[in-house]
Amino acid sequence: MRYFLTFAYNGTPYHGWQRQPNAPSVQQTLEEALSTLLRQDIAVTGAGRTDTGVHAQTMVAHFDVELSQEKEANLAHLLNRYLDENIAIHSLKPVLDDAHARFDATARTYQYHLGFQKHPFKQVLHYQIPTNLDVERMNAAAQILLEYTDFESFAKKHSDVKTFLCDISYARWERIDQGAIFTITANRFLRNMVRAIVGTLLEVGKGKISVEAMHQIIQSKERGEAGYSVPACGLYLTEIHYPERIYKK
Amino acid sequence: MRYFLTFAYNGTPYHGWQRQPNAPSVQQTLEEALSTLLRQDIAVTGAGRTDTGVHAQTMVAHFDVELSQEKEANLAHLLNRYLDENIAIHSLKPVLDDAHARFDATARTYQYHLGFQKHPFKQVLHYQIPTNLDVERMNAAAQILLEYTDFESFAKKHSDVKTFLCDISYARWERIDQGAIFTITANRFLRNMVRAIVGTLLEVGKGKISVEAMHQIIQSKERGEAGYSVPACGLYLTEIHYPERIYKK
Repeated sequence: MRYFLTFAYNGTPYHGWQRQPNAPSVQQTLEEALSTLLRQDIAVTGAGRTDTGVHAQTMVAHFDVELSQEKEANLAHLLNRYLDENIAIHSLKPVLDDAHARFDATARTYQYHLGFQKHPFKQVLHYQIPTNLDVERMNAAAQILLEYTDFESFAKKHSDVKTFLCDISYARWERIDQGAIFTITANRFLRNMVRAIVGTLLEVGKGKISVEAMHQIIQSKERGEAGYSVPACGLYLTEIHYPERIYKK
Repeated sequence: MRYFLTFAYNGTPYHGWQRQPNAPSVQQTLEEALSTLLRQDIAVTGAGRTDTGVHAQTMVAHFDVELSQEKEANLAHLLNRYLDENIAIHSLKPVLDDAHARFDATARTYQYHLGFQKHPFKQVLHYQIPTNLDVERMNAAAQILLEYTDFESFAKKHSDVKTFLCDISYARWERIDQGAIFTITANRFLRNMVRAIVGTLLEVGKGKISVEAMHQIIQSKERGEAGYSVPACGLYLTEIHYPERIYKK
């Protein structure tokens, strides 16, 4: 039986999602917890990777195991008790045998949290930028993203990807008290893409580059034309979208 | 010239507000920052004490110094840059020479943050209690507090205080997403009082003691009759109330 596990994590103590030698990862932490609780080797496949320090309000991973009805009903609770405060399990749902956390995801949503002043309760949970930003200009520039599909300008160099094509369906800043949150949804994201887009939009917000310059930056397909990559601590994976049909009735 | 400094702090790394030997305190951290920036010994007097791990969204302290107009305009900004992320300065205001951060405070407001499930982004910022609580019952019991003035039942034993009298003017729970916040305002609070009140109200919310039992608990003047003291990490000093007349025009 295949299951989708939905959970949140604070990325601060992890070297990203993906298992790697000699550094703690969310994937390894989950696999060890599941393997211990279920007394068998469990491997999990995530919906995507997050980099060191990036948070997830919602992440999904699948794994295969045979569970009694009782165990199935109990596992999310047991996992929550076993795992420390950095990971919170939200749900465990049976899915079709060939459902895939990564390949069946139709879209992903990320948010980037900015703070405009010091905030003792959000230290590794947002990026503090003391400048006053013109959020209206940043929104005008963000809308230009929707006119394009090739985002090589915002891709990490030497990424091992076949295409730089992404369908961005939503990209918008919202002001919050003493800060702003950027929400972006696309069918896929290139490595480092959200952080490079946010860094570029910050330059627009500071008035260092014009709204119209977004066209050139995207068309150039040159990472060097875009802005800096903002820190991981402000970035949250917030939603992974799946078709309803993958869930078992 | 006397100044009121208003600031917030994350209490996690400090052994409370008050300076003490061999343990970091907020008072000492502020005094050292001010003394370094102003190149003279500065002592600050806080509006009250907070215990180890208790947070402040708003704390006020006064100190005396002669400042140039430029320095006065700049000091909050310089302090914010000098202090680490755990303390955020909100304002610096000149006050009357005899204004006193502690004695002129007419009321203080505290909040206690409860979470009903694991929350990777609020680890030391709330108290996680997995039980389902009856917030309506807790509010009914909280209202009983307003009928009394002697709160010895919620005072730490052997506290060095002359009276246990407090005028509580507000005490109410509010539901938030996956949690609840308790807000309480009084002219003064006894040591550990909010945490003991919250612990007692949790017992009411769990159905372990009745709403009416609050009367007996308060009338008993026995700490042993009240509930347990909830952890410091959920407690925030949120407001200190002063008469307008103390501020210089």
